[in-house]
Amino acid sequence: MKRQTKTFLFLAASIALRFHLMSIAIIVPDRDISTFVTELRSFCNEQVFVNPSSMDLDKVETAILWNHPIGTISSFPNLKLICSFGAGVDHITSDPEYNPAIPLTRIVDEELTESMTRYVVAAVSMFQYGFHFSGDKELGQQYIRKPIHPPELTVGILGLGALGEASAKCISELKYKVLGISRRKKDLDGVHTFALSEMDTFLSQTNILICMLPLTNETMDMVDYQMLSSLRNPSYFINVGRGNQVKEEDLLKGIKDEFLLGACLDVVKNEPIKVDHPFIKESRIILTPHIASITNQRNAARIIGENINRFRNGEKLRFQVDPNTGY
Amino acid sequence: MKRQTKTFLFLAASIALRFHLMSIAIIVPDRDISTFVTELRSFCNEQVFVNPSSMDLDKVETAILWNHPIGTISSFPNLKLICSFGAGVDHITSDPEYNPAIPLTRIVDEELTESMTRYVVAAVSMFQYGFHFSGDKELGQQYIRKPIHPPELTVGILGLGALGEASAKCISELKYKVLGISRRKKDLDGVHTFALSEMDTFLSQTNILICMLPLTNETMDMVDYQMLSSLRNPSYFINVGRGNQVKEEDLLKGIKDEFLLGACLDVVKNEPIKVDHPFIKESRIILTPHIASITNQRNAARIIGENINRFRNGEKLRFQVDPNTGY
Repeated sequence: MKRQTKTFLFLAASIALRFHLMSIAIIVPDRDISTFVTELRSFCNEQVFVNPSSMDLDKVETAILWNHPIGTISSFPNLKLICSFGAGVDHITSDPEYNPAIPLTRIVDEELTESMTRYVVAAVSMFQYGFHFSGDKELGQQYIRKPIHPPELTVGILGLGALGEASAKCISELKYKVLGISRRKKDLDGVHTFALSEMDTFLSQTNILICMLPLTNETMDMVDYQMLSSLRNPSYFINVGRGNQVKEEDLLKGIKDEFLLGACLDVVKNEPIKVDHPFIKESRIILTPHIASITNQRNAARIIGENINRFRNGEKLRFQVDPNTGY
Repeated sequence: MKRQTKTFLFLAASIALRFHLMSIAIIVPDRDISTFVTELRSFCNEQVFVNPSSMDLDKVETAILWNHPIGTISSFPNLKLICSFGAGVDHITSDPEYNPAIPLTRIVDEELTESMTRYVVAAVSMFQYGFHFSGDKELGQQYIRKPIHPPELTVGILGLGALGEASAKCISELKYKVLGISRRKKDLDGVHTFALSEMDTFLSQTNILICMLPLTNETMDMVDYQMLSSLRNPSYFINVGRGNQVKEEDLLKGIKDEFLLGACLDVVKNEPIKVDHPFIKESRIILTPHIASITNQRNAARIIGENINRFRNGEKLRFQVDPNTGY
């Protein structure tokens, strides 16, 4: 073999080795993600580590994260891409180690959207029919009455992203009057939309307020006593956004003061909720353990795998988060 | 004036008087139906009596009935048309005084259908998300888990009339697998339909059984231990049909034997339900007081008023009940 050929082969091998060393780390604690891992491996040529050992940390270029422990991001010295394992990215953007210069993607998936829509429709209808009080049958006798006719019951959606928009559409098809508010005013069929500056008008016309916002600095603690007491009677609150968007003591006070008939919460500030949390004792609050939309592992692998391939090939990423808005 | 003209006028006046004497009676106990009465008067030229006194009984040609007391029908010697105030007619057809030779109509109304659809969608989603156990939070801890992925959860609808068909369509759009069974097999988009002879196959594939049948001799006590124990696991029962279609002790036994995870009932055998009824104590049963679909009074007046006018003009009635099938 000629020296030139040898040199070429050596270089090619080094590049290939270097290329293969650039790996993917998955940090998704407390969940069986075996389906995701298997599917992702079929999409990507890179080596995939689940909870990589200290030996492998410098090989990691892509991190797939969901509720990762503190110190995870800084443990990867060569990180070039972060993919959230869900629709939200607040677990990443709120991490002081997160560097906004590193591209960050999230999951937008039809199945996830459909699941969220079903949850929201169920919560709205439960309130309309008084189902939410049937658990406490004594209290139920007081509240269960003829349903409020939907055109008289207005649903207001805080946040018109992919999830908010799909829910608005479905609720409107079920003949509820639907309002929506978002930072940038949107045009949606069958939905009366507002810009953020019109919040007071939006709230005064809303009976059932649904929080579908991403968690950002602006939306932290946004749902407070002032907001809840501005709703139209009868009023109800549904949260499928993030627990940190709600002042929990204000929500309880709203229910105790009886201007709020109850709430249905899929998220709370600290999850899983502690058994001594005051929400547990309040029969007018329905609690579910963050199940409104669960990432479908096969779809997530396809979406993340495709983005990793796009990143490797220098193509535009899908569902990339704007560091200025946080979603 | 000529004698001939006088005679003619006298006869015309008698006919007109006779015509106006032919009146409408409304017997809808325990409900404020003032909107309906006002609207109906604007549609019909006939005199309208609400709970007519004994003096007026012989003038009544049309009776509008909902849960009328025994003896009502026979009190009208000149009855020619009966209109049910709702979608169901079993309160009329089960009355021994009811004469199948007298035309009977019911209400088929888009708003009533939409209301029923919302109720059914809510009940299905509640089961999927474990909402139905959140009232009993201790029990809830045991049951609330990640939602069952809809394609794995099959909804089976007993009865594919106007209401069943609309619910099937909506549930299917929310990505549940939907089956339907009816006396005459129907073709519906996105719904796998069965004929009555295929009941065993239908039940063995159904997780969530929804009763949307009219009450007839054939459907009385139809939902029994045998039927409920034939469902696929996990199984759940929703009744928006009639309480008399369910053997209540069998339903309780199914829940106690734990092959049925629970039930959501808008109807029971004897309404309103007594406080000592065993359903009240069973936290896995959600009860609502026959509110899944409430007749919209304005629409009912329009539909019944139009039918009375058609009857007077000898035209074909809308939504006339076939005395052979009972719906």
